Amino acid sequence: MLINCVAYQDGRKLADIPVEDIDGWLRKPNCFVWVALRDATDDELRQMQQEFDLHELAVEDARHGHQRPKIEEYGDTLFVVMKLPEMRDGELDSGEVAIFVGQNFVLSVRNNSQQGFLGVRERCEREPDHLKQGAGFVLYALMDAVVDRYFPILDSLETDLEKIESQIFDRGAAKWNIQRLYDLKRRATVLRHVVAPLLEVAGKLHGGRVPAVCSRSQEYFRDVHDHLARINGAIDGIRDTIATAIQVNLSMVTIEESETTKRLAAYAAIFAVSTALAGIWGMNFENMPELKWKYGYVMALAAIAGAAGVLFWRFRRAGWL
Amino acid sequence: MLINCVAYQDGRKLADIPVEDIDGWLRKPNCFVWVALRDATDDELRQMQQEFDLHELAVEDARHGHQRPKIEEYGDTLFVVMKLPEMRDGELDSGEVAIFVGQNFVLSVRNNSQQGFLGVRERCEREPDHLKQGAGFVLYALMDAVVDRYFPILDSLETDLEKIESQIFDRGAAKWNIQRLYDLKRRATVLRHVVAPLLEVAGKLHGGRVPAVCSRSQEYFRDVHDHLARINGAIDGIRDTIATAIQVNLSMVTIEESETTKRLAAYAAIFAVSTALAGIWGMNFENMPELKWKYGYVMALAAIAGAAGVLFWRFRRAGWL
Amino acid sequence: MLINCVAYQDGRKLADIPVEDIDGWLRKPNCFVWVALRDATDDELRQMQQEFDLHELAVEDARHGHQRPKIEEYGDTLFVVMKLPEMRDGELDSGEVAIFVGQNFVLSVRNNSQQGFLGVRERCEREPDHLKQGAGFVLYALMDAVVDRYFPILDSLETDLEKIESQIFDRGAAKWNIQRLYDLKRRATVLRHVVAPLLEVAGKLHGGRVPAVCSRSQEYFRDVHDHLARINGAIDGIRDTIATAIQVNLSMVTIEESETTKRLAAYAAIFAVSTALAGIWGMNFENMPELKWKYGYVMALAAIAGAAGVLFWRFRRAGWL
Amino acid sequence: MLINCVAYQDGRKLADIPVEDIDGWLRKPNCFVWVALRDATDDELRQMQQEFDLHELAVEDARHGHQRPKIEEYGDTLFVVMKLPEMRDGELDSGEVAIFVGQNFVLSVRNNSQQGFLGVRERCEREPDHLKQGAGFVLYALMDAVVDRYFPILDSLETDLEKIESQIFDRGAAKWNIQRLYDLKRRATVLRHVVAPLLEVAGKLHGGRVPAVCSRSQEYFRDVHDHLARINGAIDGIRDTIATAIQVNLSMVTIEESETTKRLAAYAAIFAVSTALAGIWGMNFENMPELKWKYGYVMALAAIAGAAGVLFWRFRRAGWL
Amino acid sequence: MLINCVAYQDGRKLADIPVEDIDGWLRKPNCFVWVALRDATDDELRQMQQEFDLHELAVEDARHGHQRPKIEEYGDTLFVVMKLPEMRDGELDSGEVAIFVGQNFVLSVRNNSQQGFLGVRERCEREPDHLKQGAGFVLYALMDAVVDRYFPILDSLETDLEKIESQIFDRGAAKWNIQRLYDLKRRATVLRHVVAPLLEVAGKLHGGRVPAVCSRSQEYFRDVHDHLARINGAIDGIRDTIATAIQVNLSMVTIEESETTKRLAAYAAIFAVSTALAGIWGMNFENMPELKWKYGYVMALAAIAGAAGVLFWRFRRAGWL
Repeated sequence: MLINCVAYQDGRKLADIPVEDIDGWLRKPNCFVWVALRDATDDELRQMQQEFDLHELAVEDARHGHQRPKIEEYGDTLFVVMKLPEMRDGELDSGEVAIFVGQNFVLSVRNNSQQGFLGVRERCEREPDHLKQGAGFVLYALMDAVVDRYFPILDSLETDLEKIESQIFDRGAAKWNIQRLYDLKRRATVLRHVVAPLLEVAGKLHGGRVPAVCSRSQEYFRDVHDHLARINGAIDGIRDTIATAIQVNLSMVTIEESETTKRLAAYAAIFAVSTALAGIWGMNFENMPELKWKYGYVMALAAIAGAAGVLFWRFRRAGWL
Repeated sequence: MLINCVAYQDGRKLADIPVEDIDGWLRKPNCFVWVALRDATDDELRQMQQEFDLHELAVEDARHGHQRPKIEEYGDTLFVVMKLPEMRDGELDSGEVAIFVGQNFVLSVRNNSQQGFLGVRERCEREPDHLKQGAGFVLYALMDAVVDRYFPILDSLETDLEKIESQIFDRGAAKWNIQRLYDLKRRATVLRHVVAPLLEVAGKLHGGRVPAVCSRSQEYFRDVHDHLARINGAIDGIRDTIATAIQVNLSMVTIEESETTKRLAAYAAIFAVSTALAGIWGMNFENMPELKWKYGYVMALAAIAGAAGVLFWRFRRAGWL
Repeated sequence: MLINCVAYQDGRKLADIPVEDIDGWLRKPNCFVWVALRDATDDELRQMQQEFDLHELAVEDARHGHQRPKIEEYGDTLFVVMKLPEMRDGELDSGEVAIFVGQNFVLSVRNNSQQGFLGVRERCEREPDHLKQGAGFVLYALMDAVVDRYFPILDSLETDLEKIESQIFDRGAAKWNIQRLYDLKRRATVLRHVVAPLLEVAGKLHGGRVPAVCSRSQEYFRDVHDHLARINGAIDGIRDTIATAIQVNLSMVTIEESETTKRLAAYAAIFAVSTALAGIWGMNFENMPELKWKYGYVMALAAIAGAAGVLFWRFRRAGWL
Repeated sequence: MLINCVAYQDGRKLADIPVEDIDGWLRKPNCFVWVALRDATDDELRQMQQEFDLHELAVEDARHGHQRPKIEEYGDTLFVVMKLPEMRDGELDSGEVAIFVGQNFVLSVRNNSQQGFLGVRERCEREPDHLKQGAGFVLYALMDAVVDRYFPILDSLETDLEKIESQIFDRGAAKWNIQRLYDLKRRATVLRHVVAPLLEVAGKLHGGRVPAVCSRSQEYFRDVHDHLARINGAIDGIRDTIATAIQVNLSMVTIEESETTKRLAAYAAIFAVSTALAGIWGMNFENMPELKWKYGYVMALAAIAGAAGVLFWRFRRAGWL
Repeated sequence: MLINCVAYQDGRKLADIPVEDIDGWLRKPNCFVWVALRDATDDELRQMQQEFDLHELAVEDARHGHQRPKIEEYGDTLFVVMKLPEMRDGELDSGEVAIFVGQNFVLSVRNNSQQGFLGVRERCEREPDHLKQGAGFVLYALMDAVVDRYFPILDSLETDLEKIESQIFDRGAAKWNIQRLYDLKRRATVLRHVVAPLLEVAGKLHGGRVPAVCSRSQEYFRDVHDHLARINGAIDGIRDTIATAIQVNLSMVTIEESETTKRLAAYAAIFAVSTALAGIWGMNFENMPELKWKYGYVMALAAIAGAAGVLFWRFRRAGWL
């Protein structure tokens, strides 16, 4: 589905143009065309391939989706794939955007994602000084917008982790903790697969040998790279903390169990003593003088209570009860 | 066993040719010969070695099999070894294909694998525009076909992992989980040994200094490289998740055991109290007035039931029962 | 909030100057201006941007804060962000300082931090020989001062770790240990995120290709780099030790539990024997000759005590009691 | 002890020569001398040092043994140290071979190892075409022979691992498994210390800048390098599997213990109920009407058996018995 | 404290000289001065700084100590810091030596260490051929001497590890093992912090671009580098083994506990059966015919003994007792 097809010159919007006319505009000096597609059909992609002379492998990738985030050069054209993760029903689902950038065109193809990039276009049109840098700046603006969407997801991971951490030493929370930690780990892994490969290649857009189309906006791409590095570092931190938390959680379960075992065994011991004593006076020997004493029973009860009491006191002192 | 031996010119099939005539065709301009062998005998390999002037070490590797996946240059000839993993009786078994590529020939030697590459040849012959690129493109087509076979194996690993994950917090599934996780880990390790070394060397076929025979198809090899990177990343993710899952599984066992211990100990405590009380009234003291009461027995039963009830209620409230 | 704005020439302070005059002083030869801001307002930053011709992305970073530590070049201007961690209420909180350095100016913007850099300025002014090196030396002095603040935090981590280590084999300290280890790990992680990214980039300021403004002070920057490497190495050591300590702690809990289980089970066994024996003599068979013996009861008690004693002795010998 | 001292020309053996004449043969064109020593004395080494003008540090290393595997260049002479691990009494013991290679000589010094390299010499002499490449090819042949000796050790590790894996989920095998896994880990570590440093440096002998003496046999050294990479990869796989197996083993112990605990506790509960009921009817209240019933006893036994039976049935249904 | 101050020419000692004359000797051709200080005062260091024109940052580092091992170039002067670990009261304590090396001088400053370097000087003076290489060779000799001191420490770690390993599967040694493993880990970590940073930088002294002062002794520095690599590899091996041993130790504790639990529970079950049976015959029903049998009691005892015996036999057969 075509969303926009606009021609720009010297940083200013010239006109919404029909797709068929693209070819003509591409030939004008200092002019570039910015096309946005969404869930593009095969026909649309084929048309774009012809208009912009795109490489078949890149178009194939844009068509099939489910690519790794990457930045590839096909001659003068840059091909960028980024993930668009969104929280849906508590799961982290991943749309995708494929961007083709040449000296005088930008083509973005968004797949399986709710949120569009209209805001990016508006912001760019409000800043003609920047837009003058050409297609490279548009690529930056799109990448920046995509990366900005990773931050709230990162924040939600960090918030969840903090919640779990605040309960990690709570008694009886172990099972709930471990489930949430595992779930968090999975989401962190998804976000990492979104960010890490992009970080790896984003360095190619600034410093050293840079694709021609990006050379005028290098500082901006470094900024995107830096944001990705920040997110990636934070994810690594989260993953590391989760690993420790799972270990600590296991320790806490073991400690708790150890305490429960002690407590129950202590009570069992108290009753075992009582039962043993009662059993002794329940024996049927004829010659058991204390059985005939007037206060024998009371003394027996006292003895049992006393033994139990002593044990209770000692266990408590040892911190078991 | 010889499967095919065909000569191509300008991307089009010229003729099936006998092995003896290869030498003549190799001298024709813009012409290349594509030979496919399967479980080749020593004689066949020796013949090929002479026809194409192959290096003895490479031929040795092709003969013995069980190589690490690799890409090696012997002068102008490229020697590629790839694994062909197949699921057989629930085990991941690995065949192998060795490919020799020169400026004007391709020789593939398949060992210990059921699935052939006839489809690759057919597809190549249908796209003469691509095949015009020469032997390099055939190498790409073969590598692409091999790598495409890794995806269903990866998918089966991911499906299995998801199945295990959906049961990882189920009560009593620990043993079954741990066995399946261990088995999954082994299969993931096999696939990794298939993919990782290939990924390592596949980067040599695009960008930077590239073997002459591949230089015209660089973008295609980058695509293969990218697929391998995707698979490798996914395997790393699976391995990481398995490690966490094993840890979590251990935690769950410990938590479950802790709960069972609590529950049983609670019941034991309830019966221990009953036994102790019954033991007390079973003592043989003469002066135990309550024994003579009319409702003594009922009161005793009530006391026992009451004590048991109080304990039961408290344990339940504490979440132990 | 403006803190200072001073012009220097040949390593000596010329005058406190008003912000508006900066432009004039920048044009004088061998002269540089050093401005310090604290929690700068947007207006102040905009003014500085114009005076020193700063890049908008760097200014944006200084405004928003919460950056990763980094060193970036914008043309001839160097932009450095460092964290200023401070212990507040037992938590490690992080302020930030952003420093812009050009051939003839230094601008530091401190955010969310109590401690200032007046001491640095004073020290610099006392050493005109060094200050003669220009803006680069000021950058060194500021970085050195920031890095020096990391050492006491590192020391407190090491002290805490030593305290925990001295108790790690103490009986019953497991829960407390694990909590403290977890807390320590978190603080070490915070410090690591402060140090590691800075270490990564600090190498750019000495050896190899160095920004022009730093080239005269390379040895000094290497010294800062070396300090960062030392801190980073120490943090890695702490983290490694914490990981081992958590594992060891789990082992200790398990060992302790094992000992408690043995001890309690041993006592339980002793009383179970007593109860079983008492139960036997409590049976109501008519023909139980020992019940009528004169010393039957005493013998029974002796038998019970003897059985218990033997068990006690054996358990003690086995090290269980 | 001198084993051989032979001169070769153009790939063919000329003569066994006395050590004293080496000097003369070294001056002949296209001629090289191949000397093999075993457990060399200081005198022998000193003599060789003079004949071949070896560097004192290399000679020292050859004398003392216990070196890390390494490849070092001393001027035009290459110095190679490799380990010769052998299974002796179930332990992996390591001999060593030090090889000096110059343009026209090869000197191998074998220490503390049973197996010699006579086979290598014979093979070389049978292939004069290869031997024509000179001293470099002899180095290759020796390295290839050494590396080939690593494979059976690797195989024995893999076989042992498979044996353990086949029993890892067996009930009651935990202790035996853990001992064998630990032992396997040790042997894998020994082999790794033999292979990994060699792999690290073997890459220097092919591709890029290569020592002159090896330049004609590069493809052969790449083959050795590839073999080492294969072994190293396999060891890494084994180590990784062992780590997982140890973890899994711990899980299995915990699961087994959990099951035993459940089973025993279930039986304990059944008998506790019986004891409690018997205790109640063993109380001495006067007014316990059921005691006087004709079938009271039978009913009591039935009640006890019934309670035990119900519990048994429920525990079995819950999978505890 | 000044230890020595000696001038050398062409590898031979000329004279012990007073510190004040250093300046003069430095100007003579082919002459170098070797000064050794111990726990130098600020005055001594200041004097040396002037005599040899040392960089203030390096002098500061030598004064304060507690540096990371490192090798730094200040112009033509090389500054080397190495740790001197010594066993004191069972703890691994670390002294330090800082070495300044220029074209015609060596200055070593030893701090907080008992063992001196007189032996090094003596050995050097006995080998004028080597000493002719100049200050670089002295640096090598000092580094070699320092690194040689690491070996006995490494040996003691390995011996301790072997001792622990020989007991790791012993029953009841778990607590002692875990304490010793933890202690060993700490000492290994100390040694690693001594060796690893030095290894990292020692590579700069041979191959590639080498400081002028070391260029004539490259092969010697490579030897030191190789020693460091060997030590570092061994430490990594120790650390890896410790990690596994801790894990295995935990498994062993769990296995032992599991066995103890089984054994005790088995005995408990035997007595529980006895108690239950005795309880049944202790019930007070009037109509319990067996109570009146002549051999009822004997039969009861036999039944109890029989039940206990059967259980005992079954538990033993199952390997629990």
